[in-house]
Amino acid sequence: MVLSLQRYFVPETNWGKDEVIINADDAHHINRVMRLQAGDKIICNHPDGIAAICEITSSGNDGVQLVIMEWLEESSELPIEVTIAQGLPKSDKFELVLQKGTELGATAFTPIQAERSIVVWDDKKAEKKFKRYSKIVKEASEQSHRTKIPQINDVTTIEKLIEESSNYDKKLFAYEEEAKTSEFQSFGTIISEMDSGNRVLVCIGPEGGFSEKEADQLKQHGFTSVRLGPRILRTETASLYVLASISYQFEELRCR
Amino acid sequence: MVLSLQRYFVPETNWGKDEVIINADDAHHINRVMRLQAGDKIICNHPDGIAAICEITSSGNDGVQLVIMEWLEESSELPIEVTIAQGLPKSDKFELVLQKGTELGATAFTPIQAERSIVVWDDKKAEKKFKRYSKIVKEASEQSHRTKIPQINDVTTIEKLIEESSNYDKKLFAYEEEAKTSEFQSFGTIISEMDSGNRVLVCIGPEGGFSEKEADQLKQHGFTSVRLGPRILRTETASLYVLASISYQFEELRCR
Repeated sequence: MVLSLQRYFVPETNWGKDEVIINADDAHHINRVMRLQAGDKIICNHPDGIAAICEITSSGNDGVQLVIMEWLEESSELPIEVTIAQGLPKSDKFELVLQKGTELGATAFTPIQAERSIVVWDDKKAEKKFKRYSKIVKEASEQSHRTKIPQINDVTTIEKLIEESSNYDKKLFAYEEEAKTSEFQSFGTIISEMDSGNRVLVCIGPEGGFSEKEADQLKQHGFTSVRLGPRILRTETASLYVLASISYQFEELRCR
Repeated sequence: MVLSLQRYFVPETNWGKDEVIINADDAHHINRVMRLQAGDKIICNHPDGIAAICEITSSGNDGVQLVIMEWLEESSELPIEVTIAQGLPKSDKFELVLQKGTELGATAFTPIQAERSIVVWDDKKAEKKFKRYSKIVKEASEQSHRTKIPQINDVTTIEKLIEESSNYDKKLFAYEEEAKTSEFQSFGTIISEMDSGNRVLVCIGPEGGFSEKEADQLKQHGFTSVRLGPRILRTETASLYVLASISYQFEELRCR
């Protein structure tokens, strides 16, 4: 029953002690699309990752007023915090990674302007793009019943990414060349040895993969190169493979 | 070195004892796009799933002539044969499943006209569609270095799918309602108990999931319902989750 209620992410400022207010687009969605009325219930997600069943008390020009009925104990969040650092890919592939990666449980996304990225990030369009990206992850979070919306970080470089990578428990990067040797460290071994609550940073190159220089830089700074199965995956598929595998290991598998 | 050679799938009729002929689009690709010449090497994939390094001997109006240099021993095929039976989804999502599913190692795809499929299969457009689908899986097979091209079956119904499902070792279906009970059988347990060479049929509903009636039919005929992680996945993401998990279990994990 609980899972079939409509979900909305509500900004922190809209939470009172016992009440919640929903406005803007979501209020419109509640009133016009879902046609919910006083007495109907929805689930409101707090930015802290907690959620409550709330009942609509009234609805007007100031938005939808709700009262908190029951706080929920949920566990729809991946027990490992995964940040996907994705070499900027062509066309709308980054948006695919955002949408599917959110469903699969990613904690954060960091676009990288990599050496082989064909797309060059346009700062002038950044604001508009981030607005669109935010909408994608918010909607995917609601659709997949997550209690937290993944964070989208500013576009960065390999150098900056390395600088800011000290607070991860594991740092990995997909490296196609790795699949050609037999001395690679198994992705499965690395993942299955992690513990709940660990933070992992996974770097995926753009279409042409990481350059040799980038791979060397990453290796020198404690990143482990991994292959993701024996087939060569497209850049956007690689990110989804990582997240699905981690979900499978920690949310479905009972082998350890 | 071997992995960086260009790959082409060559129909059975084009293989001689020691030679191979490539014509049509692929010959054009070799001559005009890759600009390969006599003496250059490529990898030719035989429909049986084997592959050979071949050297171009000549190139003319009859196509590209090659001589077989060395048969390869490769293992880029998933050790479990997975057929994805996908409830027909909206827009171009089925094409996404074909492309990404091929990269992730699927053996075959079967589109299902499910009760909640919003798209109705148009027989008049079938030929054109299958041609497009075939091109997608062929190109994705080449790109991901597979030695077999997945099969695309005709669109079918739940009833027909059930009738023809007797030769699978395992039959599963994703059922969202399953996630709401705690008595479900873990997807991880089922997958990790399979053996190399097993054939598995995985049914994924369309956008609205399977109807209660369809779920009952499937259950009555030996299909096990599974949840795919605790989040609610979109129909196309569910197929990719299944394939990535099976790849992770059998190609990357060393936990058993």
